[in-house]
Amino acid sequence: MNKPLIFITNDDGIHAPGLRALIGVMKQLGDVLVVAPDKPMSGMGHAVTITSPLRVNKLKEEPGHIEYSCNGTPADCVKLGQKAILGRNPDLIVSGINHGSNSSVNVIYSGTMAAVLEGAMENIPSIGFSLNDYSFHADFSKCEPYILSIAGNVLEKGLPEYTCLNVNIPAVNGSPIKGIKIVRQAMAFWDEKFEHRKDPHERDYFWLTGVFRNRDEGLDTDEWALKNNYVSVVPVHFDLTSHKTIPLLRDWETGNLN
Amino acid sequence: MNKPLIFITNDDGIHAPGLRALIGVMKQLGDVLVVAPDKPMSGMGHAVTITSPLRVNKLKEEPGHIEYSCNGTPADCVKLGQKAILGRNPDLIVSGINHGSNSSVNVIYSGTMAAVLEGAMENIPSIGFSLNDYSFHADFSKCEPYILSIAGNVLEKGLPEYTCLNVNIPAVNGSPIKGIKIVRQAMAFWDEKFEHRKDPHERDYFWLTGVFRNRDEGLDTDEWALKNNYVSVVPVHFDLTSHKTIPLLRDWETGNLN
Repeated sequence: MNKPLIFITNDDGIHAPGLRALIGVMKQLGDVLVVAPDKPMSGMGHAVTITSPLRVNKLKEEPGHIEYSCNGTPADCVKLGQKAILGRNPDLIVSGINHGSNSSVNVIYSGTMAAVLEGAMENIPSIGFSLNDYSFHADFSKCEPYILSIAGNVLEKGLPEYTCLNVNIPAVNGSPIKGIKIVRQAMAFWDEKFEHRKDPHERDYFWLTGVFRNRDEGLDTDEWALKNNYVSVVPVHFDLTSHKTIPLLRDWETGNLN
Repeated sequence: MNKPLIFITNDDGIHAPGLRALIGVMKQLGDVLVVAPDKPMSGMGHAVTITSPLRVNKLKEEPGHIEYSCNGTPADCVKLGQKAILGRNPDLIVSGINHGSNSSVNVIYSGTMAAVLEGAMENIPSIGFSLNDYSFHADFSKCEPYILSIAGNVLEKGLPEYTCLNVNIPAVNGSPIKGIKIVRQAMAFWDEKFEHRKDPHERDYFWLTGVFRNRDEGLDTDEWALKNNYVSVVPVHFDLTSHKTIPLLRDWETGNLN
């Protein structure tokens, strides 16, 4: 049997230790093609580059292991890697390991998950991995068996149509990780504040800061899992329709008003 | 009764004719505060600015009409406008009128809708308006009664918790608009191609191009509505969980693997 071809990207950039950790794990499962941003792209959400040209730079070519950096976003890396470099679908797309959580509504802001949603739109099995530790030198050592378990299941059994996975791993905090939980996205939000400063020329500027608050008391959420030292796996799709709201607005329909 | 306070932003920038058209319509319904990007931000998705400072520039202050430009993304404009400029919630957030469709999966890439989702996360009634015409000098004249109808309903009746609206308006093509339909997001996708070029120094570069393809034959979708000259209204939420998939993955749960 041929080895699976695994496409790897991230949003912290080609040099991030989290990407290096993920490459190391994926090489146990198949051949790897890495196309990752040439600089950190955190908070880029699902940005795509349409008004400037994209460039790629081959950094490594060994049997079973090819790497490119790209001047685009994580979503660009997936599109370009698949359409312009590979010319076919990989067997699996993985993104990460992100330096910091992408649980709950962070899925919306996450470049890591944007790459994964690109895979889902192409119906390629895709997984985003994030470690709940923002530091550059985070300890990724405990992640490996959980990533192997989840990616192994996806390679063996596939995923439902147009569905991908958002996997968040609790930070190493002295307690052992308790296992893997399949959960839903929690209703948790950023409570933002802006720090107002004056520059040396007396002009105002603002820094975005914020505190993350969980308003969801459910025991079936990603926030609950992480707080209780479980790896959270949320199956994610890209249908943002609030289907239950459609009948409530039916009487807002009209005929021609011009 | 006090006039409602309406917050207005977009992703085509403070000078876009679509924004000017929306301001004109909203002034019929209330007082307006505009905070819009100082340059076009199309394709920025849900990007937020965390690694550089934000600045705002007051451009206009008349009774009932204040305008700022901002060096951030549409999502930044909503956060900054509400938290740093206004200090309270507006009665309504509107974004647009976008120059180009945000139907179907475009909701994921859309800065227009990122601003609206920011409103939904704060539980503020929020609506994104887009005209299915990409040109800078598109004809926005037919949009007004539909925008007034939808925004009037939202101001009067509110929206369900954590839900916003994605409104797309068919391009003016000689046929009259037939009315408003409440619909779901179609399963339609970009079929991307990269145009490969060489720069004058013989270095490769790529332009992202694509064709939009509807794979969804449903008569209850935004693509169907637009194709049939209806204004499409999709109620949108930010729970990306594929709830029906959760039980299918239950046996992927594990205990400690370290």
